[in-house]
Amino acid sequence: MAEKNEFFQSETVQNFNKEIEKYYLGPLWNAIPDLMHKQPAPHAQAYLWKWETLYKKLMEAKDIFTPDRGGERRAIYLQNPGLTNRQPWGWASTTQTLYAAVQLILPGETAPSHRHTQSALRFIIEGQGAYSIVQGERIFMEEGDFLTTPQTLWHGHSHPGDKPMIWMDCLDIPTIYALGGTFFESYPEKIEQPSVPDNYSAMRYAGGMVRPISDRSSKIAPLGSFKWAQTLAALHGLSRFEPDPFDGYAVEYINPSNGLTANPTIAAWMQKLPNGFRSKAHRHTHSTIYQVFKGAGYTVINGEQFHWSKGDFFVVPNWAWHEHVVTSSEDAYLFSCSDLPIMEKFNLEREEAYEENQGHQQIVKEFVPLLP
Amino acid sequence: MAEKNEFFQSETVQNFNKEIEKYYLGPLWNAIPDLMHKQPAPHAQAYLWKWETLYKKLMEAKDIFTPDRGGERRAIYLQNPGLTNRQPWGWASTTQTLYAAVQLILPGETAPSHRHTQSALRFIIEGQGAYSIVQGERIFMEEGDFLTTPQTLWHGHSHPGDKPMIWMDCLDIPTIYALGGTFFESYPEKIEQPSVPDNYSAMRYAGGMVRPISDRSSKIAPLGSFKWAQTLAALHGLSRFEPDPFDGYAVEYINPSNGLTANPTIAAWMQKLPNGFRSKAHRHTHSTIYQVFKGAGYTVINGEQFHWSKGDFFVVPNWAWHEHVVTSSEDAYLFSCSDLPIMEKFNLEREEAYEENQGHQQIVKEFVPLLP
Amino acid sequence: MAEKNEFFQSETVQNFNKEIEKYYLGPLWNAIPDLMHKQPAPHAQAYLWKWETLYKKLMEAKDIFTPDRGGERRAIYLQNPGLTNRQPWGWASTTQTLYAAVQLILPGETAPSHRHTQSALRFIIEGQGAYSIVQGERIFMEEGDFLTTPQTLWHGHSHPGDKPMIWMDCLDIPTIYALGGTFFESYPEKIEQPSVPDNYSAMRYAGGMVRPISDRSSKIAPLGSFKWAQTLAALHGLSRFEPDPFDGYAVEYINPSNGLTANPTIAAWMQKLPNGFRSKAHRHTHSTIYQVFKGAGYTVINGEQFHWSKGDFFVVPNWAWHEHVVTSSEDAYLFSCSDLPIMEKFNLEREEAYEENQGHQQIVKEFVPLLP
Amino acid sequence: MAEKNEFFQSETVQNFNKEIEKYYLGPLWNAIPDLMHKQPAPHAQAYLWKWETLYKKLMEAKDIFTPDRGGERRAIYLQNPGLTNRQPWGWASTTQTLYAAVQLILPGETAPSHRHTQSALRFIIEGQGAYSIVQGERIFMEEGDFLTTPQTLWHGHSHPGDKPMIWMDCLDIPTIYALGGTFFESYPEKIEQPSVPDNYSAMRYAGGMVRPISDRSSKIAPLGSFKWAQTLAALHGLSRFEPDPFDGYAVEYINPSNGLTANPTIAAWMQKLPNGFRSKAHRHTHSTIYQVFKGAGYTVINGEQFHWSKGDFFVVPNWAWHEHVVTSSEDAYLFSCSDLPIMEKFNLEREEAYEENQGHQQIVKEFVPLLP
Repeated sequence: MAEKNEFFQSETVQNFNKEIEKYYLGPLWNAIPDLMHKQPAPHAQAYLWKWETLYKKLMEAKDIFTPDRGGERRAIYLQNPGLTNRQPWGWASTTQTLYAAVQLILPGETAPSHRHTQSALRFIIEGQGAYSIVQGERIFMEEGDFLTTPQTLWHGHSHPGDKPMIWMDCLDIPTIYALGGTFFESYPEKIEQPSVPDNYSAMRYAGGMVRPISDRSSKIAPLGSFKWAQTLAALHGLSRFEPDPFDGYAVEYINPSNGLTANPTIAAWMQKLPNGFRSKAHRHTHSTIYQVFKGAGYTVINGEQFHWSKGDFFVVPNWAWHEHVVTSSEDAYLFSCSDLPIMEKFNLEREEAYEENQGHQQIVKEFVPLLP
Repeated sequence: MAEKNEFFQSETVQNFNKEIEKYYLGPLWNAIPDLMHKQPAPHAQAYLWKWETLYKKLMEAKDIFTPDRGGERRAIYLQNPGLTNRQPWGWASTTQTLYAAVQLILPGETAPSHRHTQSALRFIIEGQGAYSIVQGERIFMEEGDFLTTPQTLWHGHSHPGDKPMIWMDCLDIPTIYALGGTFFESYPEKIEQPSVPDNYSAMRYAGGMVRPISDRSSKIAPLGSFKWAQTLAALHGLSRFEPDPFDGYAVEYINPSNGLTANPTIAAWMQKLPNGFRSKAHRHTHSTIYQVFKGAGYTVINGEQFHWSKGDFFVVPNWAWHEHVVTSSEDAYLFSCSDLPIMEKFNLEREEAYEENQGHQQIVKEFVPLLP
Repeated sequence: MAEKNEFFQSETVQNFNKEIEKYYLGPLWNAIPDLMHKQPAPHAQAYLWKWETLYKKLMEAKDIFTPDRGGERRAIYLQNPGLTNRQPWGWASTTQTLYAAVQLILPGETAPSHRHTQSALRFIIEGQGAYSIVQGERIFMEEGDFLTTPQTLWHGHSHPGDKPMIWMDCLDIPTIYALGGTFFESYPEKIEQPSVPDNYSAMRYAGGMVRPISDRSSKIAPLGSFKWAQTLAALHGLSRFEPDPFDGYAVEYINPSNGLTANPTIAAWMQKLPNGFRSKAHRHTHSTIYQVFKGAGYTVINGEQFHWSKGDFFVVPNWAWHEHVVTSSEDAYLFSCSDLPIMEKFNLEREEAYEENQGHQQIVKEFVPLLP
Repeated sequence: MAEKNEFFQSETVQNFNKEIEKYYLGPLWNAIPDLMHKQPAPHAQAYLWKWETLYKKLMEAKDIFTPDRGGERRAIYLQNPGLTNRQPWGWASTTQTLYAAVQLILPGETAPSHRHTQSALRFIIEGQGAYSIVQGERIFMEEGDFLTTPQTLWHGHSHPGDKPMIWMDCLDIPTIYALGGTFFESYPEKIEQPSVPDNYSAMRYAGGMVRPISDRSSKIAPLGSFKWAQTLAALHGLSRFEPDPFDGYAVEYINPSNGLTANPTIAAWMQKLPNGFRSKAHRHTHSTIYQVFKGAGYTVINGEQFHWSKGDFFVVPNWAWHEHVVTSSEDAYLFSCSDLPIMEKFNLEREEAYEENQGHQQIVKEFVPLLP
């Protein structure tokens, strides 16, 4: 890619550029340096949101959002500072491709059923007793559970329990929006009624890598809920061996009908980084949103140090060098979502290990989080 | 399909037929009634082998086969009576497509490592302490475990324990043989040495439907061993709901990298038929080999009643009506292998429920097993 | 989807919204009406660029862009008026997902070789004698030819002929940019040298639907150039039958190694609309860029009439009703590119026929093009 | 694989083997040397049928088979001498997996419509004026045309012309039979009536690698007939470049909806071997049936020389070394069918070049064909 040549800055050229813009035309030679990077240069940036901020604002939102006022969900989403004013919808998403939010539901509340072409997932942070109802199945949620709602499935939430409940939502809203593929539909009634037994899918998949035979040719993902106890058992099993140098002990939630990610567009991982673990640095095309489920430590992203502890969210943008260090005495558990399946659909995924300095970046800057 | 017309039986035609056979030619009009059935008419027939026969003969084989005499394995295979003298290799397989056997390994014995284009699976019937070593991983076997060895993986067995150990083998030998695709190679040494930790793959998959991230693009099946405890947990989970009318509570062992069957050519299922369960009859293109892991009952196959109890093997041929009844006070557990993935590769799978008589066949005959 | 409730417009809420924005957080209940449309509501709009405008500006660009000044290509791209200031890169693309341009190369010029993760195609509008060199193959271009350069292939252009040459480029730049997956690399020398015979791939595919056997497991698309004479023969063949009510006689350029579109992300079609043809209206999720190769007529898009003649470009946005009418005495030939493969990757493609008024929209407005 | 050990030949072992056979059991250690070859050792052998033999017998069959006697088709099939008495159906197929035949239809005759789970193809050897009717499309046949009838499509033949017509049939009968997957159904009437225009599919694909847009998601192969003129044009195009060392100039008939072979189980190729061409030897897992469409020469198969000329058929079995030499002054055109797609479905395909003696085998034997 050529740098912008001096001539292209000349008045002659600038005038020509302006002239053709009147006709809704643009000069490629002017645009190409911005378009054709040697490697990904996303506007999204590394960032971290503290749990205390998120929690405080969610609690303040109790009275701002109530289900009877419409608005679908009491969710506060994370806006990437690098994307502000750079996206056509007038708000910023969490990464270029994904939207993440924290959602609060109070005892007695019901978030109405709807369906849409976006895929959604939920990771349960705090509380219990609420359920999602997905295609007629009530899925009761507990801390650490992972729920998946692939595109076009009816889903709503309700809370017959007695304590507030908080989870993380992640959807591919920015991607579907950018493509122009949004379809949305409200359920005719407020919330769908159960048509299969409660917790049906999780019970049907209570074992290991065996699948109920009736699901062998499922068109839609037959497993909507992954219980924390099972995920934990998997991580314990893995922990008997050597950790991955970049990601420690990590598992991916899969769709048992095709071996792909549970959501067709969003990869979801749970990783255990044992006490004292220090990963090596690498980078990859896909970008990632982390939620700290347990433990504390820091991540160095392109030389900047982000300290994290239980409840925090942070973003590693596309092609950013990153490495994790655990500083808590307990093991750390990081839940994460990424656009890896999207990169794979487009054959864009690449990965590179950081070779210098034994695989570790210099820390050149410390991130200072905004506190309420 | 036309019936063989009378004219085609005439001397003129018979003479013509004989004449052209000299030139290695054949008359289609003569062959077509045998080739083009309205529906599958396999030579393989329904059959049952009693455990006491199998066990007795295996024990007698202790001194017939010994590893130092070569011969690879002390395995006695099941020959379908309908296939005797009908297959080009001079022996009969268990179904048209699959080979099944019982294998005995004694303490101190080693069955040498080799690899081949056939895919294999093992289901552990009795004993413990022996291991298979597959691509450098020692997999220690316990009753009820399922092991898969897809084509071209190195594998051997050894028994450092102290009691005889018996398992079921199932391979796609007849299919690969019929296609002309057999490649076989002995390992340079007697048995491969471990290169990864023992029971590596089962430990890495100790949870539910989550997959270690390093296996997301595995070319070969990353999970070689499915522990009975997990399979049982899955069946317990399923048992909270309504059983399948034909197969009760049934799970399929899957390859977590693609959601397909653990072996690319052989489906393997474990099904729980609760005490008192009586299935409805159906038939399907694929043929099945059952092993009775626990319990007792009978299966009606095309009107013939086959009584079975723990340890027995039986075959349901292609397109045969079949239904199961449990008569033991304990639940029955049937392990089964089938060529369903082969039928699917060829787009041949069809299924039909038996509609008459509330879905139940008339029993017109009782099978009398051969006892030693 | 709930409309924005009055309460959400209240000062209390507005203050809360502002407050949380300080922390790079956003209220979903406020954003959801903009995000979750009942159906696609793209910012890109229907638009048309006249050939005389494009041609005049390209000719003026002769002295503005010269290869020795860098800038890669003398290409003027089409900026959708609806996307101005709505895309993060500071320019507007032609549709939300695709970039289209007209490119001029003069005798004696060379556009340097490079490669990138974007896929490209070229449709030859005017002239002859220039070639693209793609992965070492010189592809000489003639009017009506279609060239495909899937992602990561080296490609450059050179013009040993004697008259200016103009073609249409279409790339998936906006999509790859939005995903953060841009990788770009310049060829070490100015232009790649030939390593296979000229016009190699088109010659190797000179027949119908038969494929050279060496291409049966090609990883990259083995056919880079589709000659106009063959495309025309295909359209003549099709023309013996009934036209498609929406698209007349239309063919799609395919990748013979997988039956998918020639470019993995961009569908390219050539359609013949016979003299007097009037299509019915329909709409679909994917958006389309048309180039009028021959003939004249008009297209009604969401009730607005766009007159077109040879050389013009126009855009049909996502989910817009559209129908074509031919008014010229000669048959019309429309070349088009769309993001249909992208919609299919995301399972977003839907289609709907216009049912009212015998399938024809009311014309409520006439588009007035900008002329130079 | 161990050789059969001397002990295994002992009377003790022989007695044990016989004893267990009574129970329909077999000793693996005895069978394994026959089953587990180091490489494919098919019973099918290299063989050649002279056209004069085939033609004479077909003509004699005029009065033996007549449509009013039933029997479906006047086809004489090629029985591989190595397979006689080795296949369960009481006849021998052409290779282990495929059936080939020559079929004669006389003016005024009709071969009734039927459908089956076997896939079929036809290659037109001599004559014109007859048609196949496939799913309601009358496909008129000319010399050199290739027709494909994938499984489960209705098809019949009729001959309104005035001269006898001969073609080659190839089906996957042995494979579907071996798997137990045969379903066959006669059309309710003698022959299906046209429901689409004559020669519909070939006309719709009269151009190069462009596909009518309505076929983009065809479940069944949308192109049933490949005209010789187009195949020839493709071979001419290819002939401008270097020939493949093993196969000269060769093209494969493809299914334009997925880029796979036109039939899902049978690859069909046409290859041009120019005057004077001498290929190098290689071998591969798949086996092949050749029909000499034009020209003369010989093929060396595992050291045996098979001379061929126009009209002859010959077989190259699995994993047999083979090389072709053209001796006629005109170019040779060989049509061939193989089970390559089956090998690929089972991941069994391997290929090996003959390295010694500059890639050429020693001729150690000359095949003497049977003449009538």
